[in-house]
Amino acid sequence: MPDKQTVKDFVRTIPDFPKPGIQFRDVTTLFSDARGLRMAVDQLLHPYSGEKIDKVAALEARGFVIGGAVAHQISAGFVLVRKKGKLPGPAISESYELEYGSETMEIHDDAVDAGERILLIDDLLATGGTAAAGISLLERLGADVVGCAFVIDLPALGGRRKLERLGYQVHCLCEFEGD
Amino acid sequence: MPDKQTVKDFVRTIPDFPKPGIQFRDVTTLFSDARGLRMAVDQLLHPYSGEKIDKVAALEARGFVIGGAVAHQISAGFVLVRKKGKLPGPAISESYELEYGSETMEIHDDAVDAGERILLIDDLLATGGTAAAGISLLERLGADVVGCAFVIDLPALGGRRKLERLGYQVHCLCEFEGD
Repeated sequence: MPDKQTVKDFVRTIPDFPKPGIQFRDVTTLFSDARGLRMAVDQLLHPYSGEKIDKVAALEARGFVIGGAVAHQISAGFVLVRKKGKLPGPAISESYELEYGSETMEIHDDAVDAGERILLIDDLLATGGTAAAGISLLERLGADVVGCAFVIDLPALGGRRKLERLGYQVHCLCEFEGD
Repeated sequence: MPDKQTVKDFVRTIPDFPKPGIQFRDVTTLFSDARGLRMAVDQLLHPYSGEKIDKVAALEARGFVIGGAVAHQISAGFVLVRKKGKLPGPAISESYELEYGSETMEIHDDAVDAGERILLIDDLLATGGTAAAGISLLERLGADVVGCAFVIDLPALGGRRKLERLGYQVHCLCEFEGD
């Protein structure tokens, strides 16, 4: 490894997970390295320096790790965006299409207040479907989504284009091609 | 609410979740409050002040939120303890009995190094089965579990007794009776 490591250097690639032909970009090796985790938190927050952020919202489940760290760094609250049926309290839900079938994400209906400024965090931006559902949920409760920040972007899957077309600012720490 | 709020004041109780008769102790209202989240992180770490901790290990999925924040606070790495089949790389697994059936937890086989000092974190201590499985996985890789810290203890379910009998130091921020 070079003297100066980047976030991307800490990400491991696992072939054929979760199914044959998929190159899985594994952030657990980034999280398990104290220096890697801190670097990722600092870099995720870099574009928002000086911005007022009330809460960090993150997507289940790897997003919770890095989102929890980011929220703590800026002394913000933390909002869980979960798959349907996992949240115990009254929730609102948003469905989106997958290649085969659909997925539904939820947030508690009191997770954010109208006018609160929210930073959305996840480990990986692929098609952007889950992130768009999360943004929609936050906005339906009247919150203002300041930006969306991801550790990894898979540009071939078009998530950044999709979110930018919807009018959101997208920040990613590294890219992997060919997925 | 009183002037001085405790961690327990931020925890919400949801009746009949996930099934009738269960009083679910919901930490999402603690996490979503900036002051609550910070108080929980500070108090979880209090007994370990001055101790060398290389990594924080946390249990899927709510444990990832608070564990990510705790790891970041002490500049430690973060280890994911997940349900079977969720981790992409080579993993070791540990099964334990539930009231009906069993559950299997996993960690990556390179998640910790022999001799590393680990703090185990989760939101809730019930029977202690999941935490004991997590500890066992970490020890099988040669790590040293410094302690186990939980936001909530449900003493009626005996988790603290179980973990203390196994020789581990248990630290909880609040208790709820009657479960």
